[in-house]
Amino acid sequence: MSLWGGRFSEPSDEELRQLNDSIPFDHILYAEDIEGSMVYARALAGAGVISADEAETIIQGLRQVTEEFDADRFQLAEGDEDIHTAVERRLTEIVGDVGGKLHTGRSRNDQVATDFRLWAMRAADGLADELRRLQAAIVTLAEQHTETLMPGYTHLQPAQPISAAHWLMSFFWMLERDLDRLHSARRRMAVCPLGSGALAGSPFAVDRRRIAAELGFDRPSANSLDAVSDRDFVADMLYAICLCAAHLSRMAEDILIYSNPAFGFITLDDRYSTGSSLMPQKRNADPMELMRGKTGRLIGNLTGFLSTLKGLPSGYNKDLQEDKEALFDAVETMRRLLPVVGATVRHLRINEDAMEAALTEDLLATDLADYLVGRGLPFRQAHHVVGSVVRLAADRGESLSQLPLSVLKGVSTVFAEDVAAVFSFERSARQRNSIGGAAPDAVRGQIAEAKARLSS
Amino acid sequence: MSLWGGRFSEPSDEELRQLNDSIPFDHILYAEDIEGSMVYARALAGAGVISADEAETIIQGLRQVTEEFDADRFQLAEGDEDIHTAVERRLTEIVGDVGGKLHTGRSRNDQVATDFRLWAMRAADGLADELRRLQAAIVTLAEQHTETLMPGYTHLQPAQPISAAHWLMSFFWMLERDLDRLHSARRRMAVCPLGSGALAGSPFAVDRRRIAAELGFDRPSANSLDAVSDRDFVADMLYAICLCAAHLSRMAEDILIYSNPAFGFITLDDRYSTGSSLMPQKRNADPMELMRGKTGRLIGNLTGFLSTLKGLPSGYNKDLQEDKEALFDAVETMRRLLPVVGATVRHLRINEDAMEAALTEDLLATDLADYLVGRGLPFRQAHHVVGSVVRLAADRGESLSQLPLSVLKGVSTVFAEDVAAVFSFERSARQRNSIGGAAPDAVRGQIAEAKARLSS
Amino acid sequence: MSLWGGRFSEPSDEELRQLNDSIPFDHILYAEDIEGSMVYARALAGAGVISADEAETIIQGLRQVTEEFDADRFQLAEGDEDIHTAVERRLTEIVGDVGGKLHTGRSRNDQVATDFRLWAMRAADGLADELRRLQAAIVTLAEQHTETLMPGYTHLQPAQPISAAHWLMSFFWMLERDLDRLHSARRRMAVCPLGSGALAGSPFAVDRRRIAAELGFDRPSANSLDAVSDRDFVADMLYAICLCAAHLSRMAEDILIYSNPAFGFITLDDRYSTGSSLMPQKRNADPMELMRGKTGRLIGNLTGFLSTLKGLPSGYNKDLQEDKEALFDAVETMRRLLPVVGATVRHLRINEDAMEAALTEDLLATDLADYLVGRGLPFRQAHHVVGSVVRLAADRGESLSQLPLSVLKGVSTVFAEDVAAVFSFERSARQRNSIGGAAPDAVRGQIAEAKARLSS
Amino acid sequence: MSLWGGRFSEPSDEELRQLNDSIPFDHILYAEDIEGSMVYARALAGAGVISADEAETIIQGLRQVTEEFDADRFQLAEGDEDIHTAVERRLTEIVGDVGGKLHTGRSRNDQVATDFRLWAMRAADGLADELRRLQAAIVTLAEQHTETLMPGYTHLQPAQPISAAHWLMSFFWMLERDLDRLHSARRRMAVCPLGSGALAGSPFAVDRRRIAAELGFDRPSANSLDAVSDRDFVADMLYAICLCAAHLSRMAEDILIYSNPAFGFITLDDRYSTGSSLMPQKRNADPMELMRGKTGRLIGNLTGFLSTLKGLPSGYNKDLQEDKEALFDAVETMRRLLPVVGATVRHLRINEDAMEAALTEDLLATDLADYLVGRGLPFRQAHHVVGSVVRLAADRGESLSQLPLSVLKGVSTVFAEDVAAVFSFERSARQRNSIGGAAPDAVRGQIAEAKARLSS
Repeated sequence: MSLWGGRFSEPSDEELRQLNDSIPFDHILYAEDIEGSMVYARALAGAGVISADEAETIIQGLRQVTEEFDADRFQLAEGDEDIHTAVERRLTEIVGDVGGKLHTGRSRNDQVATDFRLWAMRAADGLADELRRLQAAIVTLAEQHTETLMPGYTHLQPAQPISAAHWLMSFFWMLERDLDRLHSARRRMAVCPLGSGALAGSPFAVDRRRIAAELGFDRPSANSLDAVSDRDFVADMLYAICLCAAHLSRMAEDILIYSNPAFGFITLDDRYSTGSSLMPQKRNADPMELMRGKTGRLIGNLTGFLSTLKGLPSGYNKDLQEDKEALFDAVETMRRLLPVVGATVRHLRINEDAMEAALTEDLLATDLADYLVGRGLPFRQAHHVVGSVVRLAADRGESLSQLPLSVLKGVSTVFAEDVAAVFSFERSARQRNSIGGAAPDAVRGQIAEAKARLSS
Repeated sequence: MSLWGGRFSEPSDEELRQLNDSIPFDHILYAEDIEGSMVYARALAGAGVISADEAETIIQGLRQVTEEFDADRFQLAEGDEDIHTAVERRLTEIVGDVGGKLHTGRSRNDQVATDFRLWAMRAADGLADELRRLQAAIVTLAEQHTETLMPGYTHLQPAQPISAAHWLMSFFWMLERDLDRLHSARRRMAVCPLGSGALAGSPFAVDRRRIAAELGFDRPSANSLDAVSDRDFVADMLYAICLCAAHLSRMAEDILIYSNPAFGFITLDDRYSTGSSLMPQKRNADPMELMRGKTGRLIGNLTGFLSTLKGLPSGYNKDLQEDKEALFDAVETMRRLLPVVGATVRHLRINEDAMEAALTEDLLATDLADYLVGRGLPFRQAHHVVGSVVRLAADRGESLSQLPLSVLKGVSTVFAEDVAAVFSFERSARQRNSIGGAAPDAVRGQIAEAKARLSS
Repeated sequence: MSLWGGRFSEPSDEELRQLNDSIPFDHILYAEDIEGSMVYARALAGAGVISADEAETIIQGLRQVTEEFDADRFQLAEGDEDIHTAVERRLTEIVGDVGGKLHTGRSRNDQVATDFRLWAMRAADGLADELRRLQAAIVTLAEQHTETLMPGYTHLQPAQPISAAHWLMSFFWMLERDLDRLHSARRRMAVCPLGSGALAGSPFAVDRRRIAAELGFDRPSANSLDAVSDRDFVADMLYAICLCAAHLSRMAEDILIYSNPAFGFITLDDRYSTGSSLMPQKRNADPMELMRGKTGRLIGNLTGFLSTLKGLPSGYNKDLQEDKEALFDAVETMRRLLPVVGATVRHLRINEDAMEAALTEDLLATDLADYLVGRGLPFRQAHHVVGSVVRLAADRGESLSQLPLSVLKGVSTVFAEDVAAVFSFERSARQRNSIGGAAPDAVRGQIAEAKARLSS
Repeated sequence: MSLWGGRFSEPSDEELRQLNDSIPFDHILYAEDIEGSMVYARALAGAGVISADEAETIIQGLRQVTEEFDADRFQLAEGDEDIHTAVERRLTEIVGDVGGKLHTGRSRNDQVATDFRLWAMRAADGLADELRRLQAAIVTLAEQHTETLMPGYTHLQPAQPISAAHWLMSFFWMLERDLDRLHSARRRMAVCPLGSGALAGSPFAVDRRRIAAELGFDRPSANSLDAVSDRDFVADMLYAICLCAAHLSRMAEDILIYSNPAFGFITLDDRYSTGSSLMPQKRNADPMELMRGKTGRLIGNLTGFLSTLKGLPSGYNKDLQEDKEALFDAVETMRRLLPVVGATVRHLRINEDAMEAALTEDLLATDLADYLVGRGLPFRQAHHVVGSVVRLAADRGESLSQLPLSVLKGVSTVFAEDVAAVFSFERSARQRNSIGGAAPDAVRGQIAEAKARLSS
């Protein structure tokens, strides 16, 4: 039986009930729902609405309901339209009519908002842990490759030499910002709606500060009408997850490209590769494609939910029921992706020879221009001179270092004997030693800071 | 066992497999998968790749697999990563090694594209039927209200009198366009990828035209590389569904507003209303809120999938696996919404008195201006004159018809005795008798055309 | 002339240049671009790359360029593909070849990231100020209406009495969270990429900590490869703006509904209403419709940009040029909306009589149930009893208070004489006096806290 | 002066007007607006609302207004809030009061819907032409490379040999579907709203069929309330554009990867490449990155507009003004992209040697399995055998053809002398000769069909 039938002459249509019921997905909130009810029962007793004994009876009954859920023994019944109804129905079966007192002054509107926030706070903590593990995997791999040079790319065209460690660490800092976003979301989320009733607040003297504290929130919400329909915490989580996925989709794209044999920079472990039903030779980097592809899905979850929020009238509207599947899906998607992405990184083989083989002298063109700057040429002219030199080398089918000095001097008289020293990839990287630069020492500095953050 | 293990020294990581496996959702494609395989077995025999007997054995085996699925007796096994693998595995258990011949020249890439298109074609047909039913419900209700006047709104402000039928029929035509979009999508979808192999086509002389025809497609695909990664049909369906939902969200918004007691134009049947766990008096129009809210979700499905497609390299990429859950969810969402929305409309009570009570004379301001036009005033001046009259009436706290003629003449000498005839809502509506207008006759014309389309 | 032509045998195609050039929109970054260059010139001198005199010459030249922009006298020239090129070109015209030294060790990649962050930091500050003004308008209006009762709605159906102040203040708290999001975004944004070069860092000993501090950033970026393609700050701003707009779209929806004459709760000032070209009587709340409609556009800006980010390879890619128009448009949209929304609120007329007239006794059904709870009935039974009472009253065409006690007792013997006291809207509101509740005292508490925040 | 001031005591606030006015962007509709007005003037005369002379005067006046716009001499005036107001204002200046008769029975609601549809129909035609040109460029290049073999990829890993022509043609068929979508959109769009008034239709006997025909529409709209707020044509165009861009973003991704020197399959012409401000050697494929990046923007335009539509009440709402900038931007983005993308393709250099060098024998693994199938092994076993062979070859550091027959026989006794014939990339491709396959003959068939379509 539903919680609200008294006023109706006919029961709901069966198809409507199937559309309306949220129990198929919101049952995962059972622990949070019951915790909220236990605290609320105590608050009702504190306010003198029920007796201490009644509260105790209710709490004992709720303990039993928890055990049934924990042991997967909970039986759904006709009319259990959502987790709140199911728990109250079962509670009343266990403890009798006193169970019907639990909902005094409380609405499903403030109840679900409370449950879902609690769940989201824990989900945020869980994702943060998983992100830390992924960061640790990145740092561990990076530490082994501070001297492994590879071409750095912009526009996917060879740009300048960097180290594999520098490349890997670039993702560490993206995740660091993602963690910051998760933490901000987590902080804003810790506001307790319980005690807001359906929209107008509670007519009973429940101690909302205490309720909030007992449930692990920072404070009670400030406006009951806002509190029952505030889903900013859902949007915040969806957004934080979405941007985090976008970062990992970029890492995935790099790994996919670098593990193509034309690059060959990287080999994925057999355990994190898959094959083809037709082509016996295939080794595909499915985890990376799923990371990239599912980023689209996560963008969809965010977009869809923002669109659902748009233009809603004040107070709770049923539209808001769309909050749950969107966030459950986003969190579950990340919970499944992150360990696999982490393990893929952990077992990545960096092929140093292939990286080295890809270092071509045009990566040093900027160094050549800097050389001219060192000899007094304004950079803009140096850039133009080296552009001509690069074109000349290409026309002659020679690398830059193969061009005779006389030819260089033909382009600019500023060139001198010592230009030969420029043609070293190690030297090029080593010189980029300012904060955040690709020089091995600078990267070791980065790694040290990263490890400090990991252990903080 | 997976279909592709030979080349690998280690099996896939368990977490990767869980992430990768599509069987939890793609099992619903079983009928299409098996139909495709039956046709393909025949095609292999036709090409001389297998014998007619082998084909028959395979087809018999596949019949058995179908029966197991139909009867819900199919048992998943370790390694059944997707529906294709599960079916081939089971087939081979039933018929022995000859089952291993079925995949000759075929890849899961062309197979899944074929299966999913077949499923989508049927889903499109199913949604079209459901939309037709909803249109019929609208027409039935509209027919009863061609003379029921109500305020028409623009900017949600009273604009001009229309009939309830005219209002209702506006949604008929939106759905008519939605059907057209579904039909276009359905037509473009009917291209058969089977025989495209993994990407390069089949080396066996399978008759692709015949395969296409036997499966109910219009023709085989024209380029194998395109065929295995063409998911336009998914996007087309997601888009057609999304815009259809947007239309219905507009109807939902109207019904939600009109069923608020301040309007009271509409009462939902008890069977399509729900109550509150706290407030005993509540009757909420949940089906309409879900229609509106789920439109956001459907926008998310479309957006997310387009974002997944963006920037993918040629050929099949695992990212494309995201196509299925997006479309399954969108179709299932509509399959559950449409009957409930249809029934809500079917059982809607139109409160004629409340509609009539809401007709106020400012709705006739345009008619008043048209009256002046009839007496020779250019419309722009007539508009200005009536604007002043409206302001004057508001200042005097009178309705337009209460203003003495002398007062009207004070604003413009064009007014005359016969102005009194203007103040009739019926007259106002009746005059809008051009094609598509709000006049009862015009609306009856609309309805007649609508019924012709429904029965075509 | 472009900054990079030396290596090319042919100039860019004209159509490509038009597509590629960002000067039509990025010219608004001129102040930030020039400030960055001034600080960078000093840093180059500090690193010994140029002399102090050269730095001074460059800075003087840049001052002149600023003046030309400020006075709208800056002349674009052929080849000015972006604001950076235009400024360097003009600088060199003014100061001669030494201008060509400014770009030493700097790339447009780190330059544009720096410019755009500076601009976004200021934009965030400007929006925060505007949001504060809007909050102040809400508080001012709310203060006048702590005793003005109106129906509170859930599911757009009458729920319980609240005050107009409580309704208005619900938006204050939404904006308070929006401000928090803007502040978080602003804090994460304050990381300086300058000195990251194209991707690998600077080979010159420029003091990155000092550069960051002089430009008003908190610290330099930690990884040069990440720094040049980190656009999290754009996404953060787009998201914060988007959710803020979603909140205001909800306020807009309420105002649109409440200003329909069927409600009549609110009248917009003539200055913030518009009319119709055809219907002389119309007064439309265009500002609210634009607020609601443009929320869609802002969702599009966010979604589009996240989709652009998805799957990009490491380092700077030209795709990222899409960051600017998206954020410029979002900020400009809000800059134009917020003052109008604020003024609309400031000049809103609350029609107390219409609100009072809309208070019907079914809003007190929960109070009636609470009355029974006070007399010992468990809430769930009380809810059911009152549901039946509500149905009975509807069937008899009477309001709740019109039902004779005998009739009430017929439903439940718990009813007694004192039930009459329940039928007071003031009493209902007054009782919801817990934190965040609708009681006048609680709302005054809310307002006091809000004012404290506004003045902090 | 606005068209609607009469009823208002105070003029609009200046900031509201700036927010509200659409003239800054909708002026581009001037030709369509004036054409619509000319036809409408004639219809008013036909209905006897104005005289034939008045109609002629109005039409002459409108001709002059057109000339002023065409010659860029049109002067905006205070109060020209949109293109309709501006044209009517100027017309009235030219022809006097009779200009004020033009708006009789017409609202800006039906007027703007008509104008914008006309514009969109032309825009669709223009994009279709541009897409045809791009298809032609693809076919021209493909024709030269039906025998140029390259690795085909799935999951970006080498899969099977295909030809460059087959790869190129895959994009032809995507665009063919895009054209179909554009045509469907164009067909659905050709419904004329003029004569629908503000929402309720026209009270004057204007001949709506004739109006529709004279303006180039197929028929008049069927329901005036729907007609004034039907923006499906905008969504249809945004969607068709968006999916087309997604296809081109995939081509862009391929070109970006294939033009990286590790692949070197492709070289972009200097005219369609750009350089770096810092790194003198760079040649970036900016047009392809912009194509890919702007796909995100176009996804945003679609998503944002669908979100704007969601949940709007019946009839015209100001939210719909967001339709124009979204579509103008999408069309303009494509108008600028397509010629550049087309030219990039037209001037693409295919590096046959690099493609050939990338053909490695593992691309023939499927052929090897097919060989075993030819000798009687079921495919599934053949696949497993070849998987083991591939692993063996990798362990021995040999290519497949280098493995001695004895070694092959050690894995499966089915191998025989004639296996050597398998190791030919030409043979592999040649065999995929079914419809849509990669064989040179099949591809020539594709190209023939493509050319037939281009010339139809």
